[in-house]
Amino acid sequence: MFSETFKNVKGKSPIIHCITNYVAANDCANILLACGASPIMADDVGEVEEITAFCSGLNISLGTFSSQKLSSMLAAGKKANELYHPVVFDAVGVGASKLRANAAEKLIEKIDFSVIKGNLSEIKALFCGNGTISGVDADVNDAEGIDEIVCLAKRCSKKTGAVIAVTGKTDVIADAEKAFLIYNGNQIMSRVTGTGCQLSALIAAFVSVNTDCVLKSAAAAVCAMGLCGEKAFERMREYDGNASCRNYLIDAVYRLNPEELERGANYEIR
Amino acid sequence: MFSETFKNVKGKSPIIHCITNYVAANDCANILLACGASPIMADDVGEVEEITAFCSGLNISLGTFSSQKLSSMLAAGKKANELYHPVVFDAVGVGASKLRANAAEKLIEKIDFSVIKGNLSEIKALFCGNGTISGVDADVNDAEGIDEIVCLAKRCSKKTGAVIAVTGKTDVIADAEKAFLIYNGNQIMSRVTGTGCQLSALIAAFVSVNTDCVLKSAAAAVCAMGLCGEKAFERMREYDGNASCRNYLIDAVYRLNPEELERGANYEIR
Amino acid sequence: MFSETFKNVKGKSPIIHCITNYVAANDCANILLACGASPIMADDVGEVEEITAFCSGLNISLGTFSSQKLSSMLAAGKKANELYHPVVFDAVGVGASKLRANAAEKLIEKIDFSVIKGNLSEIKALFCGNGTISGVDADVNDAEGIDEIVCLAKRCSKKTGAVIAVTGKTDVIADAEKAFLIYNGNQIMSRVTGTGCQLSALIAAFVSVNTDCVLKSAAAAVCAMGLCGEKAFERMREYDGNASCRNYLIDAVYRLNPEELERGANYEIR
Repeated sequence: MFSETFKNVKGKSPIIHCITNYVAANDCANILLACGASPIMADDVGEVEEITAFCSGLNISLGTFSSQKLSSMLAAGKKANELYHPVVFDAVGVGASKLRANAAEKLIEKIDFSVIKGNLSEIKALFCGNGTISGVDADVNDAEGIDEIVCLAKRCSKKTGAVIAVTGKTDVIADAEKAFLIYNGNQIMSRVTGTGCQLSALIAAFVSVNTDCVLKSAAAAVCAMGLCGEKAFERMREYDGNASCRNYLIDAVYRLNPEELERGANYEIR
Repeated sequence: MFSETFKNVKGKSPIIHCITNYVAANDCANILLACGASPIMADDVGEVEEITAFCSGLNISLGTFSSQKLSSMLAAGKKANELYHPVVFDAVGVGASKLRANAAEKLIEKIDFSVIKGNLSEIKALFCGNGTISGVDADVNDAEGIDEIVCLAKRCSKKTGAVIAVTGKTDVIADAEKAFLIYNGNQIMSRVTGTGCQLSALIAAFVSVNTDCVLKSAAAAVCAMGLCGEKAFERMREYDGNASCRNYLIDAVYRLNPEELERGANYEIR
Repeated sequence: MFSETFKNVKGKSPIIHCITNYVAANDCANILLACGASPIMADDVGEVEEITAFCSGLNISLGTFSSQKLSSMLAAGKKANELYHPVVFDAVGVGASKLRANAAEKLIEKIDFSVIKGNLSEIKALFCGNGTISGVDADVNDAEGIDEIVCLAKRCSKKTGAVIAVTGKTDVIADAEKAFLIYNGNQIMSRVTGTGCQLSALIAAFVSVNTDCVLKSAAAAVCAMGLCGEKAFERMREYDGNASCRNYLIDAVYRLNPEELERGANYEIR
């Protein structure tokens, strides 16, 4: 089911335009190269339309947001929409400040996103005006039942037309009708900075070359990331910590092939 | 003596707001995660007050300084002061330009810092208007005797109310009365970019949850960093260089436990 | 032939001022430290002249360009020219937008560069107004014969007075009279982000302490980078991918000595 979507990434080598943050930019670039795509990071409003025009997908992240970047995000997003390029939105820390909340609101109003991604508190902050903040790298251990999350994700998808990706211990990736519950992953990933940003770059790569199946290809990317997190954790030895894990994770994406993704994907559909 | 301070980091998992530079941001985030804290990097003046309000500590670095960031630093610092959150100042390259010197002067005037950190030439540039520049990553091999450095650090602490951390072959961490001379560390650390920035993030994490003993907890963080530098160096094999060392250092922080810090800390008090 | 140039880097430990991008800044800093130089990253127009004045060389990169940075690049470049410090220009993605093309034009008009570097499409975009874009990290597999590239590089050098470095499967480094064709390197390097930026930092380090032989020292830096790419690839094991390769590459620079460079350099002169 997922192998085809990954084959398309490797076969078509999409260029992904990232408007991302300086904390995770290097990792995002390397994970895109690892999966077979190519990155281009560009955020000056004077060039983002031209840049995004020759790319296959656009990835926008709110991490280390600055108000200057909003016009670049809007310009790039509109151009990508015009050209029917998928646009992924990563709502990093959206509940952390009014600045980010307002920016997110404007972005969702003006841009048709293919995928909107966040942890549970970020998705709630986006759509319910209600999130608890525990650091953008912190894992959300919400008492919320998985059924409620599925229901929330489907409703948000209905409202926006975007696939909604709620990351957490179980990741929920849903459109208005159908949800993937993804069990891949390892807790160590929450101790490596930027894994969320890397995931949104990976989703953009998958979705950009599988535009006829956005939900499935976004779910495939989430499985790929989680599976590689498991592989990274298994590879860790006595002295290894989160820095080595960071490398092992990207290495695992580099080594992953479509058949392994197929076999290793651990999910159910609801 | 130090184990308690580190236990508090692991137990309380403080969120640390970093206004830092794009060279070391990723490493700062990962070292915070490694020690049990959480990072949030945010530098837009429109959100820094809100961000810092829900954090436990603030870390401000002059690395790759830009004049735009000054207002963010001031706003975040004042808010942190209002809330009695510890603020750490890393005077990276302060002697390198008037722009940084002026910014540092304003910051020290307007913000009550818990800890001010720099190498010897940076501390001199801050307080004596006299430093020799040899690249922000370069080690200071000053002929200055350690007694003079201790004396300088105590005087600067008296003047500012902040704990002063003078990094070098021997690190001197002092308040107006008492100084820790710290012998942990390895020279290889000066060949890894951003170790100074990582150290100030680590100090912020330690101090933020040990507000009743700023001097001791800052010294504990410096010992932890130095000890992990030693461990990283010991782990290096035939082909390893500074890039692997960078990873081993953060890995060592991830693996370090309070008892090891206690046993491995190598210091005297003056 | 090349060992002397590298000995000068190790002996003189030049400080290199980098106005570079946030994707590759950390790697550029670490590769400079690895080769024996020191980095300082600074891009605020209020300090770049002072900063560059106490450095030995300046490295300007168009990666993640922003229009704000242009005035900093111009100011730093002019000051470096006044002081006869070598200036290296890395035309990252210059064909990707009018913004970068215009900036590059102005930079080349106002600054005397010692070395101008790009892949074939970037060099063409700079000098022939004609490049094909395939992502700034993508390798150029141009059908163009090597003779044409040598000829182009010599012509561009004649026009600008700069050594021209055209990177690709075979790297061509030329002044108006003479070209080095360099066969070192490994394809994996195109799967590691920022290797081009790292190379330009390395060139700046080599050239800054070998001002009497810019062509030879630039060629030496390119051989060093390629040779270390080969070593990094050889070191890769079953589970390693581009993230480990990134580390191995910088590690290899750290371990490289002048004699190894001499023996391992694989080039011809035309």
